[in-house]
Amino acid sequence: MQNNIKFIDGGVCAPQGFTANGMLCHIKASRTKNDTALVYSDVPCNAAGVFTQNRVKAESVKLTQKHLADGRAQALIAISGNANCCTGAQGAENALRMAKAAASQLNIKPEDVIVYSTGVIGAQLDVTKVENNAEALAKGLSREGNKEARIAIMTTDTQFKECAVEFTVGGKLCRMGTMCKGSGMIHINMGTMLSVITTDCAISSEMLSKALHESILGTYNCVSVDGDTSTNDSLCILANGKAGNAEITAAGADYDAFLAALNKMNLVMARKIAADGEGATRLVECNVKGAASVEAARGLAKEIICSSLVKAAMFGSDANFGRFLCAMGYSGIPFNPDTTSIWFTSKPNAKRYFDNYDDFEVHGEESVQVYKDGVPADFDEDLAKKIMDREAVEILVQCHDGNAEGTAWGCDLTYDYVKINGDYRT
Amino acid sequence: MQNNIKFIDGGVCAPQGFTANGMLCHIKASRTKNDTALVYSDVPCNAAGVFTQNRVKAESVKLTQKHLADGRAQALIAISGNANCCTGAQGAENALRMAKAAASQLNIKPEDVIVYSTGVIGAQLDVTKVENNAEALAKGLSREGNKEARIAIMTTDTQFKECAVEFTVGGKLCRMGTMCKGSGMIHINMGTMLSVITTDCAISSEMLSKALHESILGTYNCVSVDGDTSTNDSLCILANGKAGNAEITAAGADYDAFLAALNKMNLVMARKIAADGEGATRLVECNVKGAASVEAARGLAKEIICSSLVKAAMFGSDANFGRFLCAMGYSGIPFNPDTTSIWFTSKPNAKRYFDNYDDFEVHGEESVQVYKDGVPADFDEDLAKKIMDREAVEILVQCHDGNAEGTAWGCDLTYDYVKINGDYRT
Repeated sequence: MQNNIKFIDGGVCAPQGFTANGMLCHIKASRTKNDTALVYSDVPCNAAGVFTQNRVKAESVKLTQKHLADGRAQALIAISGNANCCTGAQGAENALRMAKAAASQLNIKPEDVIVYSTGVIGAQLDVTKVENNAEALAKGLSREGNKEARIAIMTTDTQFKECAVEFTVGGKLCRMGTMCKGSGMIHINMGTMLSVITTDCAISSEMLSKALHESILGTYNCVSVDGDTSTNDSLCILANGKAGNAEITAAGADYDAFLAALNKMNLVMARKIAADGEGATRLVECNVKGAASVEAARGLAKEIICSSLVKAAMFGSDANFGRFLCAMGYSGIPFNPDTTSIWFTSKPNAKRYFDNYDDFEVHGEESVQVYKDGVPADFDEDLAKKIMDREAVEILVQCHDGNAEGTAWGCDLTYDYVKINGDYRT
Repeated sequence: MQNNIKFIDGGVCAPQGFTANGMLCHIKASRTKNDTALVYSDVPCNAAGVFTQNRVKAESVKLTQKHLADGRAQALIAISGNANCCTGAQGAENALRMAKAAASQLNIKPEDVIVYSTGVIGAQLDVTKVENNAEALAKGLSREGNKEARIAIMTTDTQFKECAVEFTVGGKLCRMGTMCKGSGMIHINMGTMLSVITTDCAISSEMLSKALHESILGTYNCVSVDGDTSTNDSLCILANGKAGNAEITAAGADYDAFLAALNKMNLVMARKIAADGEGATRLVECNVKGAASVEAARGLAKEIICSSLVKAAMFGSDANFGRFLCAMGYSGIPFNPDTTSIWFTSKPNAKRYFDNYDDFEVHGEESVQVYKDGVPADFDEDLAKKIMDREAVEILVQCHDGNAEGTAWGCDLTYDYVKINGDYRT
């Protein structure tokens, strides 16, 4: 099923009928790159979203949830530099004014506009900056506008994050594209970031929502940078049906093809977010095998990559594997430490910002076993250091509690994380 | 009840009948200060303990839990530099050999010896280093030995941690003393550290255990340095009855007096641990008021001080209060953000290593309100920076969901935390 999924150039404009744009509106005074993005489909779309599980929700999130209640949308407007969160009634009004500003330029209803925001929490937005630029933003929409939009949603991200795939559904060629932002406040409870996915595949809102919820479990939900679940997390998908396939309205081969494409793309984005975690120098992938269930395997892997002590050890290339066992122990997930083994693996020229999406496996031919069946292994410290010093490192944990596997992605904890976050607002 | 509790000099040797010692046994090759401690009561004691909730438990923890099953103990031996955890059957044997080495010198049963260890997880201990020094360690026991012992349990702690109190039970003067170690791998799920408490108050094992479990809820369990629950956490209390009071065997005024003394001492130690968190430059106390319950108040306070983003902001004296609301939001604890207000407060000459235990309140006369009834307050950034720049800072959160209050203690996240933990084993 996944064999006919092909990575292609581009992002949210790759599917038919989608245009985008981005520009600098000075949402935050010090900003020098684009901070406002618009994505538009020339026909109405079925749409679905998943959002932060934080009890404190941005006004943009609250509004978007309302706008998606009917499973329909046609455009998305996003700003970075201001989260529009903890901003009360004025914040709610500002979010609505963003939707209205986009809608009036696009001749659509405000209810069909998705609103995203990211940045400082607890600061009022000067929404006139968006309103005054809405006309230019809409006029500049183009099929290459993903290049402007993908920058506009970045905060402390050092790399833009987008990808696109081709796949077939019912004999019709479909495309799907995405862009997202990650960096800080990234945790495992729903992909903690902003992400937008576009597709020309015809699929009902219900099946879109189902696919989205299924796909994040093993992708966005398995990434952590710092254990903080943001107030603004939003992942929305727009499907305009232009590919001409028979609309997917139920489970079956077509749905599976769609889900496989979605999974493949989300997996790439999840890794990109982990690799570009705030201050990170290293992508860390943790694979847990032999667990009692997929949930247990993922849970153990997540707990390892979330530990500050593990992350600091990865930064220092210190094979302090006892911290992995410690993290597994406080996860609350049953496993038998006495039959557990641990390896580090990597590839000689491993890159955290991988280019070849078809071959981005972190695990590598060089490995060192540091823990064997519940006791410390006698290992070569120099080899361990060499393997851990690379830009992408796998922690492989072999349990003997079952046959399930799970993966989580994270990064190291560095001086720069502290530096970036010690003075974020200014 | 608490009025007659008086802080006195000393630590674990303050109560009658207790002696201690500490020496350097080179548990870790690079160590230059004491790394092995012995605490002894000249008569058998009632005893109780609370231990790590980590599923992966050190061999010392497993053995001590066995030895305390009868509610009796007479001595404690502790090492730092090796956690004796994830060390299998050989580790279990080594823990037992530590108990035996102490017991044979003290002419007591190995079952009456509590064993503590802290340090690198997943390294085998050379137990002969302890055995070869056991005689000297026992011979050197003295009433001033707390000064040697309190150093021997330190790992990355920069300050030893001890205190002692006097109180009366049934007209008899009782004393209680303690020493503990904290620093890294400190989290809220049971005081994540090593701590030993001694008292000459007569109290049954059952009531000792009850008091210990009650006391940690608002003290040790409200401290977090890095969110990692260690594998070696142990907090044991030894009561030798030498004060001559009628043994406390049930709830009542005597028990309340004992619990109040225990609380007061544990509170001091909890703050000391937070202030000396790995790499910390600042003690952060978070007080949540107006919560629906004490558990909710403590839970919200803990979530705030546990957030890496909050901790980095405290390091940078950046009044990024939106992160506090974000952390409260993902705590899972119900509260209404729309009626919440936040202040920072501190005192002009605030010290994180406070000397006056009777007046160590963090909250101070200078304050700045940054969030008011659900919207950002218009505040003086310079004043906020001045208040936050001090060594001990209070985050005051006023909710309107009830009347309960709760406090948690933590520290800032600094470059040094990353440095210390990037290369811990060597």
